[in-house]
Amino acid sequence: MKVGLDVGGTKTDALAVDDSGTILGRVRLPTGWGPDAVARTVLDAVAALGDEAGVALDRVRSVGIGIPGQVEPGSGRVVHAVNLGVDALDLAAMLAPELGVPVQVENDVKAAALGAHALHARHGASAPASMAYLNLGTGIAAGIVSNGVLWRGARGTAGEVGHISVDPNGPRCRCGQRGCIEAFAGGGAVAERWGRRSALPVRDVFDAADAGDPVARELRAGLARGVAAAVRVLVLTADVDIVVLGGGVTALGDRLMTDVAAELSASAEASPFMRSLHLTDRVELLPPGSPAAALGAAIVGAQGDATFDTEEALVHG
Amino acid sequence: MKVGLDVGGTKTDALAVDDSGTILGRVRLPTGWGPDAVARTVLDAVAALGDEAGVALDRVRSVGIGIPGQVEPGSGRVVHAVNLGVDALDLAAMLAPELGVPVQVENDVKAAALGAHALHARHGASAPASMAYLNLGTGIAAGIVSNGVLWRGARGTAGEVGHISVDPNGPRCRCGQRGCIEAFAGGGAVAERWGRRSALPVRDVFDAADAGDPVARELRAGLARGVAAAVRVLVLTADVDIVVLGGGVTALGDRLMTDVAAELSASAEASPFMRSLHLTDRVELLPPGSPAAALGAAIVGAQGDATFDTEEALVHG
Ligand SMILES: [Zn+2]
Ligand SMILES: [Zn+2]
Repeated sequence: MKVGLDVGGTKTDALAVDDSGTILGRVRLPTGWGPDAVARTVLDAVAALGDEAGVALDRVRSVGIGIPGQVEPGSGRVVHAVNLGVDALDLAAMLAPELGVPVQVENDVKAAALGAHALHARHGASAPASMAYLNLGTGIAAGIVSNGVLWRGARGTAGEVGHISVDPNGPRCRCGQRGCIEAFAGGGAVAERWGRRSALPVRDVFDAADAGDPVARELRAGLARGVAAAVRVLVLTADVDIVVLGGGVTALGDRLMTDVAAELSASAEASPFMRSLHLTDRVELLPPGSPAAALGAAIVGAQGDATFDTEEALVHG
Repeated sequence: MKVGLDVGGTKTDALAVDDSGTILGRVRLPTGWGPDAVARTVLDAVAALGDEAGVALDRVRSVGIGIPGQVEPGSGRVVHAVNLGVDALDLAAMLAPELGVPVQVENDVKAAALGAHALHARHGASAPASMAYLNLGTGIAAGIVSNGVLWRGARGTAGEVGHISVDPNGPRCRCGQRGCIEAFAGGGAVAERWGRRSALPVRDVFDAADAGDPVARELRAGLARGVAAAVRVLVLTADVDIVVLGGGVTALGDRLMTDVAAELSASAEASPFMRSLHLTDRVELLPPGSPAAALGAAIVGAQGDATFDTEEALVHG
């Protein structure tokens, strides 16, 4: 049995999965702020899997942790997890002795890509040969899985499509460039340009756009344009079979998908080449509440590192 | 011993390489027009390796052919090789009986990517873990090699970065979209917008830009901008360690590289994130007359398909 955790900015999702891939238990806890509280959240979540979900913790053989920050593969260490108040944290070294099993740490988007791939295999006869998971949250980043293996890249920037500029006259991005995909479609950038305080700023923008607000309409159109651009970049560069959209912004569901599909259809209309790619058929939404990220973390944890075949980790729900 | 051929729009480059990777002979012939003439060119080039370059043809064990068109992996067949007057051609089936050895066919840019990777290993202590070969010719496309293996993608569009739009107000591309990288930096697009008849239109544009012509200056700036955008896309999506530039437009050498480096430096100036990528250090020019494409074709030919480790094909010159 293996445990996986997705440590998010507000919530931590933890699950236990057996060797055949069945999810045995799942809990969600609020995430603490700062290095010690984050580590404590992981320990509490594992304990809760035993106490609340009835998981037999003595049978756990590995723990994997997905976390929003930079993770050097195999290091067990995360840096620049700014949403968690963490500058640097040696999570594996800190937690392995407490948990009594090997602990692996992975960037949360990369973990979610592996998990989304495994979940896809669960639902269909076979997993797609290649898949990108495009995370639409405060920022925008992707994880790429090919033949079940995570594409790691040379220096840790694989999937950083958020900072590809698609418009030299577009909005200024927090990275300093203009017209980055993230400047158009990142939840943080949209909220900032919208400027009104809200718990759900992107949803507010969509509501206001529906009500005819011109600024909201422009922001909403830009968001769809940015997501569509990211899909095109992923297909035209890595030629992934499908692109799965996940992350906080995808809580908008069909409202988002309709806009993105319209953008992709417009470019297919203009270009026979784009039409030949059938992009609208290749974009999927991760279902709300999907355990993809925590499941991917469990897969990483069981393998020592993420460069293995997720086919072995087929999830039979 | 293996033979590789790069069938180009005007010339065909053929070489023989022994098992230790030493190039034993190399010839160049004009390429014929149309299916029969293209097949004839291949046979003539192999014969010339024997007659002119003194290669012992009875020791050839495989032939690989790189060709500008769509090649279904393992099919030995090319379609839409428009620059050669070829709609569809079953090259392997047609030539294997004549040559008496297995024949493999690969897209020329993908073959060049494998060859450039092998040549890199020849010059340094080790090949980079991942590399993109960005071909700047009439059109723009890339091949990606990771851990010595060609990234094939799901549906044959891996590396098609030329049709990523980087400016919604940019020039119309032949694909129907606006502002594609190829519309800015493709030799064909630049020549068309320049509009004056010339054997070397891109060189003319550079010369005219040096002389102060405003249209030429804009075209030249757009070309550098498109190439820089392609480099960013390749690094931010696939995170390749280095990007090697090749193809006809790179005959401009340092004049091109200076412009591209200036573009990359400008974005590094504007963005700490882009600066952290050290892109100017990661772009290289394939030397003029490099045998990369023919060598890559030889590697493909020896393996049955291109998904193998080019480390084994290390070229010791
Ligand atoms: Zn940016
Ligand atoms: Zn195009």
